[in-house]
Amino acid sequence: MSDAANFIAAASALLGARGFTTDPEMMEPWLTDWRGRFSGSAIGIASPASTAEVAEFAKLCAHYTVPIVPQGGNSGMSGGATPDQSGASVLLSLRRMDAIRSLDPSAKEVVCEAGVILQNLHEAAEQHDLRFPLTLGGKGSATIGGLISTNAGGTQVLRHGTMRAQVLGIEAVMPDGGIYNGLTALKKDNRGFDLKQLLIGSEGTIGIVTAANLRLVGAIGERVVAWVGLDSISAARQLLLRFEKGMSDALEGFEVVPEHCLDSVLAHLPDARAPLAQKYSWNALIECVTGESDATELREAVEAELVAAMEAGLIRDAVIATNESQAEQFWLLRDSIAPAERAIGPAMQHDVSVPVDRMPRFVDYAIPAVEEAYPGVTGVAFGHLGDGNVHFHVLAPTGATPGQWELEEGKKISAFVHDLVTEFGGSISAEHGIGQLKRDELGRLGDPVALSIMRRVKAALDPHDLLNPGKLVPLAPDGTKS
Amino acid sequence: MSDAANFIAAASALLGARGFTTDPEMMEPWLTDWRGRFSGSAIGIASPASTAEVAEFAKLCAHYTVPIVPQGGNSGMSGGATPDQSGASVLLSLRRMDAIRSLDPSAKEVVCEAGVILQNLHEAAEQHDLRFPLTLGGKGSATIGGLISTNAGGTQVLRHGTMRAQVLGIEAVMPDGGIYNGLTALKKDNRGFDLKQLLIGSEGTIGIVTAANLRLVGAIGERVVAWVGLDSISAARQLLLRFEKGMSDALEGFEVVPEHCLDSVLAHLPDARAPLAQKYSWNALIECVTGESDATELREAVEAELVAAMEAGLIRDAVIATNESQAEQFWLLRDSIAPAERAIGPAMQHDVSVPVDRMPRFVDYAIPAVEEAYPGVTGVAFGHLGDGNVHFHVLAPTGATPGQWELEEGKKISAFVHDLVTEFGGSISAEHGIGQLKRDELGRLGDPVALSIMRRVKAALDPHDLLNPGKLVPLAPDGTKS
Repeated sequence: MSDAANFIAAASALLGARGFTTDPEMMEPWLTDWRGRFSGSAIGIASPASTAEVAEFAKLCAHYTVPIVPQGGNSGMSGGATPDQSGASVLLSLRRMDAIRSLDPSAKEVVCEAGVILQNLHEAAEQHDLRFPLTLGGKGSATIGGLISTNAGGTQVLRHGTMRAQVLGIEAVMPDGGIYNGLTALKKDNRGFDLKQLLIGSEGTIGIVTAANLRLVGAIGERVVAWVGLDSISAARQLLLRFEKGMSDALEGFEVVPEHCLDSVLAHLPDARAPLAQKYSWNALIECVTGESDATELREAVEAELVAAMEAGLIRDAVIATNESQAEQFWLLRDSIAPAERAIGPAMQHDVSVPVDRMPRFVDYAIPAVEEAYPGVTGVAFGHLGDGNVHFHVLAPTGATPGQWELEEGKKISAFVHDLVTEFGGSISAEHGIGQLKRDELGRLGDPVALSIMRRVKAALDPHDLLNPGKLVPLAPDGTKS
Repeated sequence: MSDAANFIAAASALLGARGFTTDPEMMEPWLTDWRGRFSGSAIGIASPASTAEVAEFAKLCAHYTVPIVPQGGNSGMSGGATPDQSGASVLLSLRRMDAIRSLDPSAKEVVCEAGVILQNLHEAAEQHDLRFPLTLGGKGSATIGGLISTNAGGTQVLRHGTMRAQVLGIEAVMPDGGIYNGLTALKKDNRGFDLKQLLIGSEGTIGIVTAANLRLVGAIGERVVAWVGLDSISAARQLLLRFEKGMSDALEGFEVVPEHCLDSVLAHLPDARAPLAQKYSWNALIECVTGESDATELREAVEAELVAAMEAGLIRDAVIATNESQAEQFWLLRDSIAPAERAIGPAMQHDVSVPVDRMPRFVDYAIPAVEEAYPGVTGVAFGHLGDGNVHFHVLAPTGATPGQWELEEGKKISAFVHDLVTEFGGSISAEHGIGQLKRDELGRLGDPVALSIMRRVKAALDPHDLLNPGKLVPLAPDGTKS
């Protein structure tokens, strides 16, 4: 038998029919990312049922030098879970490892396997009057392993932090099949390099996360959601500072939506209504929460902040959702921006961040800059003002050819935007990761010392480049891997 | 000239008379740790004045293969900043780099050089009605660089986390003299491995922290401090859970003090008085804070929690400090335990942690276990219940010979305690780090996969073992470094 045939035989023997397949029809949905931007091929798909099976499978792959591409819900934004087109690697799906191993309501800890879907974790926590304080659009498919490997963000980062802040412990399989057992949650532990932190956000390039111990927080009793009209993003930033000071830990979300985005959403959603009677250059969507079942006090506090901001001339108009259904409508407007903008035509979308206090300056500078450099395009920026995280979209000129425009002018525009972000001291990937989408850009713009450290850590922990090769870690300037 | 003489000449030329000395009298205070447990010697002491000088000096050391031992305030607990006795290495003091480069009150960020003393940072923050939310006994000498390199803890971890939670950005010099510039604070940044996290707690073994961007929080308006008498540490844990639920983010500290420790302190401090009329097996010291200048509401809330706990039969007695001076007296009792216990006679002190909910079981099990295994000794456990961090002291039998007892029976007792901690899933170093004190114990008891990863990361980033050799990273089972 050929090496490949031997590997397939050994993998089938190890994992059984449910755990390993080379059937093209079974594999097909997982070889292209959900947005259809990256496609690859693979020897097969392994779906081990336990950490021990992952470890044995990793040893097998090491023996046959078959690269492993770990995959969770296949809902990533940067092609990090899609294999290359060589067909030499094997896809390792963690989806069968979907057990919640334990949930301790008094310690507020839950131990999840990597394949647990975020929505299922939310529901498990709710049964104990607790919640897992991270959520995002893909919650119905995104898995815990993927969320950790990409250090996912979402709409609650302002108050609760990214995935990094939720992880109390990690279990992972290393490239040689060794199992790193760091699941036990210790509030204080100074026994050297924090390997848990090293694995978070490493996109499966140095270890395969198989389980995690995650923190839970108290359930939300009620929320108060407000929609505010403003003249500028600077005013929104001032309003954010007031809310941070006045509302303290009740503030859960602070999103900004420019007029263009709101118009696009209203055109895209036939039943949607604008929350305010007039149009404003900028809108802010603010969410405050309380653990109490009565939101009267919180609502009064939000009202008082808004009245004071109005009297200070900071905001033009504001409305507080009168019930949960209206609150959901406000959020629907925010969450529909990406699809609404996509419906207009081709666009380059950039998930970038800058220091929070520089975000207004960045937006006010970058939009006219890109529109001047590339006549006909429209720049729009919206998103998580409280996190300094801008979703910066550049819409193609009318009449641009979809497919062609992105590959030609679009690519130059992205480089232009990334250059600007770097000048502002920001990050070319705020929450979507690097994957294969931004690897070359990271190599072009990253701190050379930081990139050199990354390459050396990668080579030390995965000397044969068997874990998710071609992802995240840029090549050296001379084109080599280290 | 010899290599050593060449190195000294080059270092003197680079750093000048203020920046480099080989004068034995100048060097002497820094070659022994503050508790006098570790002594070493060195070629000289370098005290660079800038990051650029640190980088040039590191290149010089690399050229001459002279190992560097970084040092801050020389107030570490594990000998991590003391060179070995070979005299082959050079001490690198960061104390001259003591500038606060910037403090932004609206962003609540402060950029400190490594040599800034904690107390000075506290004072700088206070001038802006802010505070740096980490403090510990050595605040008058401990430096920011040392606090980061050891991921220091202290008495506010329950609410604010260890040093790791305070660090927004890091600047560091790598062993080859490269400068890693990661000072800019980004709330979201997914550009690969988090090198900042890797450097925190690495005890100067892979990079020299030269500056950091740290978070600040709002100043405390008032505090409410209570002293509580209880029958068991389990009851203290139940009380902690009630406070965590009821007081939410107002709870800043929750310490436990057994009867034996309180007795020792009262004998040690002639003017001290017991806060409660009767004696109890266990005492809890609880601190809650508010940003308001009026503590009436907070005091009422604390009182209500204590009354409810009393009615539930959880606590025996309690008193709330009536003023700031009494609050300080309560804390003085807690802070005097270590010196009071030392005054009694020889003791082995262990800074260990277990999962928070296992701490009562651990204490109730470990004290009789050690007293049975080593007849005549007295086990006492006190400390940060809210963090699962026990300071576990074992006092020598009456008549034991100081100096001799520690080296003989004491060493066995420490191994016994560390074995127990490991069985409970805990850490042999909660907040004091590994240094040279616990390196062999970490090698004996650490997860072999984790230790192998640590060794490989160390070798990748410091291939010639020039940064703080002999510290933190245990040798491989075969006695080699990797």
